[in-house]
Amino acid sequence: MSINQLGIVKRNIVRADKSAVEKLARFGVATVHEAMGRVGLMKTYMRPIYAGAHACGTAVTVLMHPGDNWMMHVVAEQIQPGDVVVAAVTSECTDGFFGDLLATSFRARGAKGLVIDGGVRDVKDLTAMQFPVFSKAVSAKGTIKATLGSVNIPVVCAGALVNPGDVILADDDGVVVVPAASARQAAEAAGARESNEADKRTKLASGVLGLDMYKMREGLERAGLKYID
Amino acid sequence: MSINQLGIVKRNIVRADKSAVEKLARFGVATVHEAMGRVGLMKTYMRPIYAGAHACGTAVTVLMHPGDNWMMHVVAEQIQPGDVVVAAVTSECTDGFFGDLLATSFRARGAKGLVIDGGVRDVKDLTAMQFPVFSKAVSAKGTIKATLGSVNIPVVCAGALVNPGDVILADDDGVVVVPAASARQAAEAAGARESNEADKRTKLASGVLGLDMYKMREGLERAGLKYID
Amino acid sequence: MSINQLGIVKRNIVRADKSAVEKLARFGVATVHEAMGRVGLMKTYMRPIYAGAHACGTAVTVLMHPGDNWMMHVVAEQIQPGDVVVAAVTSECTDGFFGDLLATSFRARGAKGLVIDGGVRDVKDLTAMQFPVFSKAVSAKGTIKATLGSVNIPVVCAGALVNPGDVILADDDGVVVVPAASARQAAEAAGARESNEADKRTKLASGVLGLDMYKMREGLERAGLKYID
Amino acid sequence: MSINQLGIVKRNIVRADKSAVEKLARFGVATVHEAMGRVGLMKTYMRPIYAGAHACGTAVTVLMHPGDNWMMHVVAEQIQPGDVVVAAVTSECTDGFFGDLLATSFRARGAKGLVIDGGVRDVKDLTAMQFPVFSKAVSAKGTIKATLGSVNIPVVCAGALVNPGDVILADDDGVVVVPAASARQAAEAAGARESNEADKRTKLASGVLGLDMYKMREGLERAGLKYID
Amino acid sequence: MSINQLGIVKRNIVRADKSAVEKLARFGVATVHEAMGRVGLMKTYMRPIYAGAHACGTAVTVLMHPGDNWMMHVVAEQIQPGDVVVAAVTSECTDGFFGDLLATSFRARGAKGLVIDGGVRDVKDLTAMQFPVFSKAVSAKGTIKATLGSVNIPVVCAGALVNPGDVILADDDGVVVVPAASARQAAEAAGARESNEADKRTKLASGVLGLDMYKMREGLERAGLKYID
Amino acid sequence: MSINQLGIVKRNIVRADKSAVEKLARFGVATVHEAMGRVGLMKTYMRPIYAGAHACGTAVTVLMHPGDNWMMHVVAEQIQPGDVVVAAVTSECTDGFFGDLLATSFRARGAKGLVIDGGVRDVKDLTAMQFPVFSKAVSAKGTIKATLGSVNIPVVCAGALVNPGDVILADDDGVVVVPAASARQAAEAAGARESNEADKRTKLASGVLGLDMYKMREGLERAGLKYID
Repeated sequence: MSINQLGIVKRNIVRADKSAVEKLARFGVATVHEAMGRVGLMKTYMRPIYAGAHACGTAVTVLMHPGDNWMMHVVAEQIQPGDVVVAAVTSECTDGFFGDLLATSFRARGAKGLVIDGGVRDVKDLTAMQFPVFSKAVSAKGTIKATLGSVNIPVVCAGALVNPGDVILADDDGVVVVPAASARQAAEAAGARESNEADKRTKLASGVLGLDMYKMREGLERAGLKYID
Repeated sequence: MSINQLGIVKRNIVRADKSAVEKLARFGVATVHEAMGRVGLMKTYMRPIYAGAHACGTAVTVLMHPGDNWMMHVVAEQIQPGDVVVAAVTSECTDGFFGDLLATSFRARGAKGLVIDGGVRDVKDLTAMQFPVFSKAVSAKGTIKATLGSVNIPVVCAGALVNPGDVILADDDGVVVVPAASARQAAEAAGARESNEADKRTKLASGVLGLDMYKMREGLERAGLKYID
Repeated sequence: MSINQLGIVKRNIVRADKSAVEKLARFGVATVHEAMGRVGLMKTYMRPIYAGAHACGTAVTVLMHPGDNWMMHVVAEQIQPGDVVVAAVTSECTDGFFGDLLATSFRARGAKGLVIDGGVRDVKDLTAMQFPVFSKAVSAKGTIKATLGSVNIPVVCAGALVNPGDVILADDDGVVVVPAASARQAAEAAGARESNEADKRTKLASGVLGLDMYKMREGLERAGLKYID
Repeated sequence: MSINQLGIVKRNIVRADKSAVEKLARFGVATVHEAMGRVGLMKTYMRPIYAGAHACGTAVTVLMHPGDNWMMHVVAEQIQPGDVVVAAVTSECTDGFFGDLLATSFRARGAKGLVIDGGVRDVKDLTAMQFPVFSKAVSAKGTIKATLGSVNIPVVCAGALVNPGDVILADDDGVVVVPAASARQAAEAAGARESNEADKRTKLASGVLGLDMYKMREGLERAGLKYID
Repeated sequence: MSINQLGIVKRNIVRADKSAVEKLARFGVATVHEAMGRVGLMKTYMRPIYAGAHACGTAVTVLMHPGDNWMMHVVAEQIQPGDVVVAAVTSECTDGFFGDLLATSFRARGAKGLVIDGGVRDVKDLTAMQFPVFSKAVSAKGTIKATLGSVNIPVVCAGALVNPGDVILADDDGVVVVPAASARQAAEAAGARESNEADKRTKLASGVLGLDMYKMREGLERAGLKYID
Repeated sequence: MSINQLGIVKRNIVRADKSAVEKLARFGVATVHEAMGRVGLMKTYMRPIYAGAHACGTAVTVLMHPGDNWMMHVVAEQIQPGDVVVAAVTSECTDGFFGDLLATSFRARGAKGLVIDGGVRDVKDLTAMQFPVFSKAVSAKGTIKATLGSVNIPVVCAGALVNPGDVILADDDGVVVVPAASARQAAEAAGARESNEADKRTKLASGVLGLDMYKMREGLERAGLKYID
């Protein structure tokens, strides 16, 4: 085993089960994250480049160096229909690693979107294309093509570990990573949560308090809550 | 007097005068803040979750711990029609303390909106509901229900002191707090400012310079301003 | 030469060639920045106050002190049709130095927009006016009029040097500064870049990979890239 | 009651009890904050300008505008021996509001230190004087003297509400505010905490685990903790 | 496999080879990171709580919730002599999760230090103990003990993936993670780098330029570097 | 004139007058910045890597790309005794562009220090060498040598414009840039300021208030300051 993880492209990766991905796509990030036990969420600085952006697919990963997007072209070839590209950088950088030409190429390969712990550009064009991107920054600054990174190795993106093949779900609330092996179970748990919600919503809309619906009054009293006038 | 302010719910609070609140609701945050002598503004990191969000009402306050939204359910019961919930956290936390279920409950109680020095989630649903929220962050991460905070004690939210019953006015420009006892006076002062503005706008649109309209030339010269070619 | 650059208004500045400005206006910030050799971009914290804001014009510059917008009224008089006001502050400040009244005045003078390394307010009105502003912050907090700054001296705005008369181009991707003397050359270089792009886009959309289109495979192999299964 | 709190100097304030202040001075900020029920701590960006800085005294407060330290001279006159000056700014500003000349004056008046939600300068001299300052920033940038603020009104400093006369305790761990009326009680509660600690430290140093000393094992098991190999 | 990784303590972990850890301890973080091919470095916001702090050991990991340090007591029991505790939090939090009592306990168990993506307190005592801590923040704010996290699961700490048993090396330059299986190889590569450095230092000190020592002139010329007068 | 400023090394620059540099070296950054009329200060995030670091000299400038320090070796050759290297980066990057080997080389060439809007490493060694460095960050992460930047072109470093040959003065309070042509005048103005200070310090130490010494009472009253009891 080499200590150096750079300069590698892994071609065969095990993608999460398609039907599980499809099921997960129907839920919001908050629901799935909750169903996962509150792990796997990327940091809150990751924002969609346009309101309403939504993406769900299997991760192909890429690790780049600051100011260098050479590997974006390498990862393009590894995209299969239904993938979401997850891009990490070896140190913090807001440069525009990605724009409308790469988006055109990624879409032609079947990509469902991009999640990048760095910057992107051509926001207007990407919005017109409705190509969903979740990024740390927007920057017009282009990059060079000089240094090797890697494709389809495990990466840490915006504070979350992403293994190639994991499910990536992203919407207005953020980006969550579901390990490939947990995709089915997560989809089921999310479904169970959601079936509850409609009923709760109706009750709350009618004026029932969460205090009563969730039977919290006793616990609060036990914890010492005091009502004063 | 206890040193510990946690674990308390104050039920009876003195809300600002209704008609003053209604008057204040017609003005922008910038106008009211200016009329107040430039105090009471929350920090600029507080942003609406959708463009055009607007809220005006009387504050019911809640103090929570990082990662714990138990008190959100407690404060719900204290909401009266026309209130805006102001949520502070004992230390910085971006977790999603609030989502569409709580919004449904708050609205059912008559809440006009939420101002929170923390994170919220279900942004898509909240936008669809047009429930105005001004927050520090958006995060899919849910919270636990384990620790007591307090309701309707004075809180510091995003750098501003909020007493229960104060008027909260929030729009695209930020969030301002008007002490309950100053609400009428602030509404009048804001009105006075605004009645001036239409006239000024017309003059400036016609090409009159602020330098002349505000008679600044003499002051600038006295201060030593030099024009060179 | 005085060491003190404050208290000066330079009236006659050499503006970039009009036709070059018009040509540059047709391109995106990313394209022009790339054509310039990747220099002259403002920091990525500069954001449009509404999606789709676009501005292109010649810079008139203003340097202000934190919390003081007196010079905004001085710069207004120096605006000529086609100018973009570039506002710098002597230390970091998010106060709202600019609002709808100043925008009305600037527009009456022919200004094409404002780029400010500080805060602005009346965002709703500015959006309704479609007056393009690129700023570091939005803040309802007004300013005083007490201290002299300068107009049409070279300023550093959001990390970029701006000389009066330079071309300022701003869109969703950021703000770029083109030195007046380089405007024609930059416009030509941008044009050359763009004429290439349509062809590339078609190829990439058809599934051709950047790896092949840009002939990167050999370089990557030479750099040591290894494909594994 | 005026809505405008600026331009006021309150001369007579009720300072916390001297003996309580003296008792509090013996404890660390962490101990006192804990004894207070975890409220009253300023934000963690407040740092001592030199390692080991320590201050404890009664608050005289000052509210200033960004870039303007006029009121620093006004507050100097209100200092009594044993006071700590607490300086807030109406919007975020890192300018150097305070340096060695003001420190000389403050010390001559009997001040025990300065807590400022802004910048300071002359750090080398202040360190040589061993005048304790806790600030948000260090900046060589001086300020003007043009706008009124207020002295001895309640202020929000670094996220904490400070009323004139409150006890301010600051050390390497941060800055805590103890309301004047709670000073005795807080000192007693802090003392009770500390008397426990020596014993705990001895046990832990001998290898006893907190799990056993605090009898946590049962609670953890009940919460569902699982040990695996 | 469960989707929920919380509530687990793994007791048996494979620690990196002792002799490799000892070798790595002799090198600086920069040297080892370089030898690793520039991967595995934590974010630069991780700083030692006192200048000169140094730690090297095998990772025992702990994942906690914001504002809750219950698991710190659980991880203490898993410490073996030579370990460094690596603490991650499920969302960003600066609370003081660790102080001098826990440090006493950790040291009694043989811990070499703590790396925490959160806050710590009792900095003065920790410094007096010379217990090396690398943290994101210093905060007097204590935490509760209410929610389960996990011990010895893989965690992302300050942007770096840490598996239990990995080597953690921390000094004034930052914190680097060496996978257990690469420890020997990394130590050798670091040694090879360092043996070169003394010779280089002597040459550079004598006035030889890096341009010549590293034979860069040709490459720079080929890249197009132009010298002008 | 080319639009592309990259790939250029200017060999002959006009350095500020030696005797003026020597005079400026005796003053603090705050004094010189004040004497300059409060312009030319770098942003407050620039901090010395060790307390008490001090540097004064003439600027040789270098512009680099993120993650690439190739030009550091090019600038080394342009250093003359008494120079301070000022390093800017084309976009924000915290990588360690500089360490003890380069410091050895810079010192051998006669450099007085380094000011860098990026990261540095080998802080322990640099401190032992007492080589003064003022930087935005500390990072163990090394850089590549692949892309051309420029040497001795005007750069914007941490928000301040630096022309080659300007005087750079840096101490605990920050970093100030004095244009070469203003060096004498700035030194004189600084001297005039400082000669006043000793007298003021004595007065303030004796208990005289700034209010009286600076004759502020009348101005404050005119501005409307009200004393209340």
